[in-house]
Amino acid sequence: MKENILKYLEKNKYVSGEILAEKLGISRVAIWKQIKKLKDLHYEIISHQNLGYCLVSRPDLLLPDEIQKGLDTDYMGHKIYYYRELESSNITAREKARSKKDEASEGTVIITEKQTGGKGRLGRKWFSPEGGIWLSIILYPHLSPAYIPRITLITAVAVVKAIKELTRIQGLIKWPNDILIHEKKVCGILTEMSAELDLINWLVIGLGINANIDHGEFPEEIKDTSISLKEILNQKISRVKLVQLFLREFEKCYNMINRKESALILNEWKLYSHTLGRKIKVKVGNRVVIGQATNINDKGALIIKKDNGECLEIISGTILK
Amino acid sequence: MKENILKYLEKNKYVSGEILAEKLGISRVAIWKQIKKLKDLHYEIISHQNLGYCLVSRPDLLLPDEIQKGLDTDYMGHKIYYYRELESSNITAREKARSKKDEASEGTVIITEKQTGGKGRLGRKWFSPEGGIWLSIILYPHLSPAYIPRITLITAVAVVKAIKELTRIQGLIKWPNDILIHEKKVCGILTEMSAELDLINWLVIGLGINANIDHGEFPEEIKDTSISLKEILNQKISRVKLVQLFLREFEKCYNMINRKESALILNEWKLYSHTLGRKIKVKVGNRVVIGQATNINDKGALIIKKDNGECLEIISGTILK
Repeated sequence: MKENILKYLEKNKYVSGEILAEKLGISRVAIWKQIKKLKDLHYEIISHQNLGYCLVSRPDLLLPDEIQKGLDTDYMGHKIYYYRELESSNITAREKARSKKDEASEGTVIITEKQTGGKGRLGRKWFSPEGGIWLSIILYPHLSPAYIPRITLITAVAVVKAIKELTRIQGLIKWPNDILIHEKKVCGILTEMSAELDLINWLVIGLGINANIDHGEFPEEIKDTSISLKEILNQKISRVKLVQLFLREFEKCYNMINRKESALILNEWKLYSHTLGRKIKVKVGNRVVIGQATNINDKGALIIKKDNGECLEIISGTILK
Repeated sequence: MKENILKYLEKNKYVSGEILAEKLGISRVAIWKQIKKLKDLHYEIISHQNLGYCLVSRPDLLLPDEIQKGLDTDYMGHKIYYYRELESSNITAREKARSKKDEASEGTVIITEKQTGGKGRLGRKWFSPEGGIWLSIILYPHLSPAYIPRITLITAVAVVKAIKELTRIQGLIKWPNDILIHEKKVCGILTEMSAELDLINWLVIGLGINANIDHGEFPEEIKDTSISLKEILNQKISRVKLVQLFLREFEKCYNMINRKESALILNEWKLYSHTLGRKIKVKVGNRVVIGQATNINDKGALIIKKDNGECLEIISGTILK
């Protein structure tokens, strides 16, 4: 009903309650109640005694209706759970994934305006104030857990492409799970799964994008290494549009992985890589490996060539410099 | 208190309630209540008017007290949750692993006399009546998810060694997760984990051993492919002893994996392998691979040499014949 009212309000500058009631076959009191609900959702609607209702602006919120309006995907994001605040979207996504599948079908999205306990890899804190994009996708791929590095890579590719399409800015992927712009972190990815030896039971991909955050908001300890899209462009971006573009790109990449056609995406990954060709220092467990990042193999592992010529295949680690 | 009473009952053929009360500093009524509790736990205790109490037999149950008595491990099995019946020990273990760590510290064991919904790999049913050993171990290794095949392999090695020590019978490991005796399945292993890209959050290893099961009990569809230890030996085994031996062997293997010293255990695995050297047909996802199983690599993957000489590395699959 809310969506129908919005349709009329969008098509016309002013619509009277009487006309809305007639068109939608409900009472004027019911219309008034729906308008009130829309206002509660931060739709700015003014009422003029003679002319009726006028939609002044849509809310700057990641509301499911807003995202799904014109969402160009087959299933990704067709179910969205929305929260004004969560401890972390991954925690909620994991709970949903564990529960019955009808509550969280393939491609279900958890989205929140703010995280109070956002996390990055290995339990590191992730600053997640209002204005950013904090979402998690629930998936049930028929793939072995060995695919998890590839899935992280394709997610990064989808983020880079979505940002590029919206802003024309080229992000670069810092292996394994960060997106950099101007050498600073604009997005992080946290992939989590439940699996047995052969098969992923469920997969949750968490995404944190520094969208409309002012630089001054970043805590001191990450100020030098973080950046937001708003800061780069000197204006707010449409978070709804970015989520839509991401879901579309991600669905494409994910379908390819499921068809075991990851080679093409890995090539794209190489194209956007910030890591390849550099001399890097990587922390792998308790070890530190130093060498040239020469390639990424078909399993999504980074190949590092040490000074003595030895090549190492690294599934995951943290680049120290 | 129960343990203390049992100690006295074991040391002496008969002990009077009066002496027990005096030694343990509680009333005779309290002693009587404890004896009643022990009887409820299937300890067979008779009372003689003049002589006192006599322990006739310990229960044939996998009671934590029984397992922990003389358990020779540093931490494995130091916490045991015991159930007369569960849907599946892995389900309960997963719930505990997800909850606070103090409820399920490293090496916590879930054990049940019977599973109503026991599962093998890929959701296959696992027949789990009374008389078998159905247990799960909860672990938090600081290892990447890529270790899961190796962890399954070392578990198999620990089972084979424990069975050998108790019964002198040499089991063989059918890659990746079954133990065979006389070409029939005597044990299966189900490894499940929660992980992110880098790190296992928690790991649950489920074990099903056909211990004291009569062949007639096996359902028709697995009668030709299953066997029990009781059937092989023509007598009941001590399930408590087998669990103790397994926990000891497993702790040793698991410590080695944590120290990244898996090479030695992989050599043992090869020694007990039913699979290596055979021509096999393996289902890997939707593909079927046919070839000679030539080796297992340091990551725990099976190496198969196809007729055309090509070698494949297989992380997991199902051997069809």
